[in-house]
Formats: sequence, C-alpha cells, structure tokens
Amino acid sequence: MAEAQKTRAREWFEALRDRLCALFEAIERECEGPVACGLEPGRFERRAWERPGGGGGVMAILRGRVFEKVGVNVSTVFGRFPEPFAKQIPGAEEDPHFWASGISVVAHPRNPHVPPAHMNTRHIRTTRAWFGGGADLNPIFPNDEDTRDFHAALQNVCDAFDPGWYGRFKTWADEYFFIRHRNEPRGVGGIFYDYLEGDFERLFAFTRAVGEAFARVYPELVRRRMHQPWSEADRQVQLVRRGRYVEFNLIYDRGTRFGLETGGNPEAVLMSLPPLAAWP
Amino acid sequence: MAEAQKTRAREWFEALRDRLCALFEAIERECEGPVACGLEPGRFERRAWERPGGGGGVMAILRGRVFEKVGVNVSTVFGRFPEPFAKQIPGAEEDPHFWASGISVVAHPRNPHVPPAHMNTRHIRTTRAWFGGGADLNPIFPNDEDTRDFHAALQNVCDAFDPGWYGRFKTWADEYFFIRHRNEPRGVGGIFYDYLEGDFERLFAFTRAVGEAFARVYPELVRRRMHQPWSEADRQVQLVRRGRYVEFNLIYDRGTRFGLETGGNPEAVLMSLPPLAAWP
Repeated sequence: MAEAQKTRAREWFEALRDRLCALFEAIERECEGPVACGLEPGRFERRAWERPGGGGGVMAILRGRVFEKVGVNVSTVFGRFPEPFAKQIPGAEEDPHFWASGISVVAHPRNPHVPPAHMNTRHIRTTRAWFGGGADLNPIFPNDEDTRDFHAALQNVCDAFDPGWYGRFKTWADEYFFIRHRNEPRGVGGIFYDYLEGDFERLFAFTRAVGEAFARVYPELVRRRMHQPWSEADRQVQLVRRGRYVEFNLIYDRGTRFGLETGGNPEAVLMSLPPLAAWP
Repeated sequence: MAEAQKTRAREWFEALRDRLCALFEAIERECEGPVACGLEPGRFERRAWERPGGGGGVMAILRGRVFEKVGVNVSTVFGRFPEPFAKQIPGAEEDPHFWASGISVVAHPRNPHVPPAHMNTRHIRTTRAWFGGGADLNPIFPNDEDTRDFHAALQNVCDAFDPGWYGRFKTWADEYFFIRHRNEPRGVGGIFYDYLEGDFERLFAFTRAVGEAFARVYPELVRRRMHQPWSEADRQVQLVRRGRYVEFNLIYDRGTRFGLETGGNPEAVLMSLPPLAAWP
C-alpha cells in the first residue's frame, strides 16, 4: 500500500508539471505588442538528473518573453538522510531512511507588473508519512485585486477540507515567508503547511486541490497584467525585490536547505533564483 | 589595558578604511577611455548606523566607473550575544558579553577582467580576545600573474610573523572560501584565519600588515586590468560568477551570519553583495 501511495503521489506531481508547463507555454504564445520585447514565445526545456544516493528528478525551465525564467521541478528522491539532518526530520530520528517526492514551481516574469509566484507541494515518508507545501505571491507592486484573488483561490481549497485550515496556513505562510534580517515579508503571502499527517486519501486530495487552484489562479493574474507597459524605474524596483527573494531562499527556505543538504542537484534546487537580481 | 587595546584596534580599522577609500577614489579618477563607460569618477558616500544592543558602524560605499560597487565597512559593536549564538563563540559560553571591531572590504569592479576582491580583519573580545580575518581574490577569468602576485603579497606578510602561517592560512582559505553545494571554490583563494590569540602587540601588528598588504597589492591588480576592453559575453560570465558569490555569502559566510544574527544593520552586512547578479 505504501508503494501504491508513493506511485500515485509521484504521478500526480508529474501530471501537474505537464499541465503547468502547457499553461505557461500558452501564455507565452498569447503575449504580443511591445511588452513581448521582440522575443519569440518561450518553450520549456527539460533536463533529467540523478541523485547519487537514490532517485532524481526532472528540471523543466522556460526562458521566454512573459516569463523571464520559470522553473517547474519534479523530484523523487530516497535513501538515507545524512546525520545530523536526520535528527531534525520527524520519524527519521532512529531510522534515517526516507522517500520524498514533490513539485516546485517558481515564476519570475519579465514585466514588473506581473507578480512572481511560487508553489510547492510534497509527500515525504520516513517511519511516518506526511504532506507539506505552500504557495505565495511576490508582487513587485502589490495591489489589492491580485492579492485578494490569489488568497481567495487558496482559501476556497482549504475551506473545502477544514474550516480552520486557511487561517492556520495563512498565518504559517506569513511567519514562514518572512525575511527576518530585514523585518519584512517576502511578498503578500499565501499558505504554508507541513507535517499534514493522517488520512492519506484526504490529504492527497487536498494536495491535488492546492495544485489545481494555483494552476487556475496564477495564469489569470499573469494574463491580467502582462500587457501593461513598464518603465526602466519599474525594472530597477523589480531587480531589488528579486534580490530580497534571493536572500530569503538562500538564508531561510526549507526546501532549498533540504535540497542542498540531502545532495540534491544544486542546479535544480537553485532554479528558484531569479534570472537577474540587484543589490545597488 | 583592555580598553586601550580596543581603542587602538578600532582606530586602526578606521584609519585603514580612510586609506582604502582614498586609494579607490584615486583609481576612479585615473580610469579613462571607453572602459570608463562615460561615467564620472565615483566618490564614497558614508552612512553611520547604530546597533540597538550597543555600538554601530559606518558604511562607506562607492558606485563608480571602475568599481561598479565597492564597500568599506567599519563597525564596532558590543553587548550580549543572543542565545544560542553565544554557545558557538569561544569565551562566551558562560558570559555572553562581547566587544567586536573590524573592517570589511568588498570590491565588485565593472570590468570583468578586473578581479573582485574581499578583505576583512577583526578583533573580538569575550572572556577571551582574538584576531581573525582573511583576504581572497575572486577573478571572473583567473590568470596566473594576478593569482601569484596576490598570494605573494599575503605570503610576505605571514612569513614575517611565522613561517608556518601562510601554508596554514592559505589551506584554511581554500577550505573556507568553498561553495560546498557546487563543489567549487569561490575564487583563487588567499588567506583565512581566526581565533589568533596570545600576544596582543604581535597579533595586532600582523592584522595591520594584512591590511597594508591588501592596500598595496589590490590597487596594483586593478590598475593592471582596468583599461582592458570587454565583451557582452564577458559581462554575462561575470554576472553568473557574481551569483556564486551571493550563494557563498548568504549560505556560508561567517561574517554575514554573525552580522545578521547579532542584529547588525542588514544594509551594512549585505553590502558585500554584488550590484547585479544572474542565475540565467
């Protein structure tokens, strides 16, 4: 049964990857006018990688005209956690064997008015088994409409499973996606959750619903803003905000730390970093 | 006596800062021709900051034509280390009071043929007292001549104090300035040392000599390359190498961690980050 569950989780992450890639490529084709910067529509390139200790993944990356860089990674890795990392992972304190599969999406649009976004869901098994994930929006110029619609999409998903989840997971995101050394949030939040343990079917359905909600709402936000012109000053603000994003990911992000400390492919782990960032 | 030593250390770091700023401004004035990019010679701007728990510093930053960004920070901070940080600091395990003063220099030249460089020396006092520091060269396109001259300058300093130091501190730098997750060095090395404890006069003289050697050799390397033309492809390589520099500083650098975890001014601590970096 554990094996069947692992297979279903992995296959879902791969199916969602395929769907997101198709959605982003469709947006690339739709963009037109001066905001296309004279560039051709981007296409995803995929590169498979293997993890020395077991498993591996596929990086899918698109460098285009709407998305200056968007990465969709799926990885399924297994083996033994290195000490002392095992000590920090539930159920791995005594038996360091693990299996983990997940999808990670990070979009860095070219247009400063189109909000960057991140989504990640994962299933992890040690002597215990749980789901984790999150999604957050990182607009350069926040506006109420986008923030409201992004949160509403996530709240709808949460509410269908547990009336307490959205509040809890939103607060968790506010705490998690926070740049402590600057005392500022990394964006306008979303949801974050981890160690969701229990009824596999229910939690797996929630995981799928989070992915589906992201695949519905984010393309809508991109289309809403992608034809808006921008200035060189807007671009500068964008590059500085991207620097903050780099700071968060390298200093605080759990997935990044997990990937780098478990011997994940650094190119895949760091695919979340923006194509260009400034610390002027 | 401790107070007099602290004052002398702090005054040295400030004097070295003034000298380095003057040297870099002189280089800015000398640059001419197309490599000056039509820009005016840069001048340092200074900004003082205070640390809530005690002390503070002055950030000096120049954004110019030879140096796209160069920062020279002096800070003198004191108070109590937060737990659990105190546990990691010699002599602070039982009494978390500390005093620390130091200088930090990071140069990011505009011309990809001019090597970026870093130098830092510091004096720290808890219930113990020691000096630490280091200097390393981070060329985009390493060449034997620059690497040899940079190392020779540091070796001369070390050899004048202890015949074993250069070998030991060079190895320490090779180990320290290493990007583990990519299994690659951040540059061509230099020296790194910490917890140099004992004869204050001798160690303070060594600290001054390291600063003086850097102030002699680095301007020489900059002048050697600053009129060499570069291509857009060279610039791209530079931006990617700068991304690696960001990865090192945010993930591994002790000074950065120390600064962020002891409530240093994040703008000052992160002044080491390059003006523009790419993860294409």
